Amino acid sequence: MKTAFGNIEMLLEAEGEEGRALSRAERRELQVQRILEAAKRCFAREGFQGASMQQICAEANMSPGALYRYFVSKEAIIEEICAAARRDDEEKLAEMLTKRNVIEGMVFGAMTHIRFVHETDACALIAQFHAEATRSESVRLIYCNHLAEVRGIFLNYLGAALERGEIDPLFELEALVPALMSIIQGIANNDLPANGVALDKVETVVRTVMISMLRPTGKAL
Amino acid sequence: MKTAFGNIEMLLEAEGEEGRALSRAERRELQVQRILEAAKRCFAREGFQGASMQQICAEANMSPGALYRYFVSKEAIIEEICAAARRDDEEKLAEMLTKRNVIEGMVFGAMTHIRFVHETDACALIAQFHAEATRSESVRLIYCNHLAEVRGIFLNYLGAALERGEIDPLFELEALVPALMSIIQGIANNDLPANGVALDKVETVVRTVMISMLRPTGKAL
Repeated sequence: MKTAFGNIEMLLEAEGEEGRALSRAERRELQVQRILEAAKRCFAREGFQGASMQQICAEANMSPGALYRYFVSKEAIIEEICAAARRDDEEKLAEMLTKRNVIEGMVFGAMTHIRFVHETDACALIAQFHAEATRSESVRLIYCNHLAEVRGIFLNYLGAALERGEIDPLFELEALVPALMSIIQGIANNDLPANGVALDKVETVVRTVMISMLRPTGKAL
Repeated sequence: MKTAFGNIEMLLEAEGEEGRALSRAERRELQVQRILEAAKRCFAREGFQGASMQQICAEANMSPGALYRYFVSKEAIIEEICAAARRDDEEKLAEMLTKRNVIEGMVFGAMTHIRFVHETDACALIAQFHAEATRSESVRLIYCNHLAEVRGIFLNYLGAALERGEIDPLFELEALVPALMSIIQGIANNDLPANGVALDKVETVVRTVMISMLRPTGKAL
């Protein structure tokens, strides 16, 4: 253990801001985060296929022995990156659900995602992920499950507004929600703010899409 | 030459429908098409990084000697696939330009692309291409140049309609066109028709987006 953790423990000491010893769990969490961030950089640069466990070790400044304590394979790292992204999305969507006006809620949900992709410069990683999802059955499953989850949340949220008579959607929500999701994805994955379309204009586009598709009735929004 | 073309010549005879000898140029074109189709299947399945020239030879049922006569590298094949896609897009966009009503023109342009991706099952190949564009400088250049070309065509087409007073866009076309392109791309690359959203509904979405963003004034459309 001492050999595997040699360098890392020194780093951890520097990172322990409060000057107290980190707990075993905290230390573990820090190491996991360091590996995940290093892996993301490698994947974005080399692709999922191109990146090797050795490259990830080098990028994380870790010995293979240390890294393999946390992740037994590249696939395990990919799965954890996806799981973290899912937890993150769930949090954002939970906040959306607190918004009573569904147009503003949908704009909030879309813009949070678009802003996140822009600010974390996640386009390259997302492109690699989509490519891998067309090849690898396990990544495809993770992707499809996540999409189905988000779709379900949107469907419930918008379904409730429809029942309250607040929106008059273009057509049935079961088909409209996937269309809205693909539009949001197209805007996010092209990182428009990095390509000359300021965030306030992107928000205008998103709001216009939501209003023209969901058609608020003006009732009690 | 005879050795390299052995198998292929037999196939070519079967393919020469009119019973006449194929010209040198026709033969060349047939071979190039066979290689490109085989390469697309390999790239979609294995990724650009994962696919090898050997796999492409096997998929095309060709000897390496024959294949290298037409393409010296995987990169040369990728470039030709992109060039062919560009020529194809140019043809479609030329047809769009003949449409006097720009809303119908934009819907036609978008739906032609969306239908093409759906009918040729091109999502996987496109995902691999986007992933490669984040990694390889030459593929990124091809991609950016193509996007800039399409953007220019849309800008001219919509700019003329704006000058004629036929549309009152949400904001300046220089920012609106990239937003519209990213929306069309999001819809196309998710292959909505294969995911439970019928083509007529997709068209309704596209038309609604165009109308709400470009806002036809009703003047002389």
